[in-house]
Amino acid sequence: MSKIFVNIALSLDGYMAPAGMTLENWDNPGFKSWGAKWGALMSWIINLEAFREMLRLGPGGETGPVNELLRHTKQRTGANIMGKRMFDAGERSWPEEAPFNTPVYVLTHERREPWVRPGGTTFFFVNDGPERALALAREAAGERDVRISGGADVVQQYLKLGAVDELEIALAPVLFGEGRRLFEGVPDTVPAFRIERVLHDPAATHLRYVRRPPAAGVTP
Amino acid sequence: MSKIFVNIALSLDGYMAPAGMTLENWDNPGFKSWGAKWGALMSWIINLEAFREMLRLGPGGETGPVNELLRHTKQRTGANIMGKRMFDAGERSWPEEAPFNTPVYVLTHERREPWVRPGGTTFFFVNDGPERALALAREAAGERDVRISGGADVVQQYLKLGAVDELEIALAPVLFGEGRRLFEGVPDTVPAFRIERVLHDPAATHLRYVRRPPAAGVTP
Repeated sequence: MSKIFVNIALSLDGYMAPAGMTLENWDNPGFKSWGAKWGALMSWIINLEAFREMLRLGPGGETGPVNELLRHTKQRTGANIMGKRMFDAGERSWPEEAPFNTPVYVLTHERREPWVRPGGTTFFFVNDGPERALALAREAAGERDVRISGGADVVQQYLKLGAVDELEIALAPVLFGEGRRLFEGVPDTVPAFRIERVLHDPAATHLRYVRRPPAAGVTP
Repeated sequence: MSKIFVNIALSLDGYMAPAGMTLENWDNPGFKSWGAKWGALMSWIINLEAFREMLRLGPGGETGPVNELLRHTKQRTGANIMGKRMFDAGERSWPEEAPFNTPVYVLTHERREPWVRPGGTTFFFVNDGPERALALAREAAGERDVRISGGADVVQQYLKLGAVDELEIALAPVLFGEGRRLFEGVPDTVPAFRIERVLHDPAATHLRYVRRPPAAGVTP
């Protein structure tokens, strides 16, 4: 049975994105160089061989356990779900072969025809809410898994639905001070997690949490 | 030179304490059993041999790497600094030999004579702010280190002062939903940290961060 998983980078103070992170604000001094913060958050990934392949940055790059982790994440993913803000930023910055190579379901109020990219990525614009997007993604993923790609508000929606089986966090030793938190308005009623694996790397700590089974005797 | 360090437990969603955590609220259903949440946050510590010794709970208990970590933390500590709320809760729940065995500097507006406990713990009530408390604690600690014990607001004050050399976090796989966050109002201007060590344990991930030296060529 395919899994629903989240795999994101998080600042030590709990933010998925620094304040003011839009392309329009790239040079806006009111947002204290969010680009530098984003770069620090992502420093663990940008030189990995698998990342360079995904973004078509050319051959080479670091190998090793974190690279294998990234490669595995890519291979297991049969469909992606993302929010409109993440899509909007990506639409202007991904290479022509967008780095998903699966169907991608974009949660939005905007009506738009599917957008087909070379390499197997097709963006579908879903206007009927997160549960409908999940049903479509599950169907498309088949035996593979469904990745909740982000941003923070979309991850929160699926956490609140109790739909997240696995939560993978690359915890980077940076402080953003403000921005979009992963855990904001996520109640204590979401299913509990257990720690399954921790991979130490100087650039980030790779934490993997798996949903706990319901307590014995409790019918879900 | 002695170090200033923080060693705390943190929920996966970033809280040091669940909402409504006061002894008065122990049975208050408006605060959804904070005791159970606190117990889940602390499950990694309560059966450790060194913890049982500290709280005079009798012989026995778990040994191993996390126990050694706790023992080391206790041994390195030459003075503690804490907030008034933490002191108030502890005053009513610590055993007669309070589990510090060092001078403890309590940040408070209340004027009170030092409170001497058996076993080397004396509580001093400091009315002149966090910098004064730190100066007193450094002096008292001698070659040993100064622990910023908590709560969240006190840790935040010392982070903002740039005084924290080492930040040790036991990250527990529990969600509180609300409560007192470790990182709330901590700006991005505090000194950066690097990951020094990660100890994996099923009950909590023990993360150790050490302050980065200032960038070369920058006079602090």
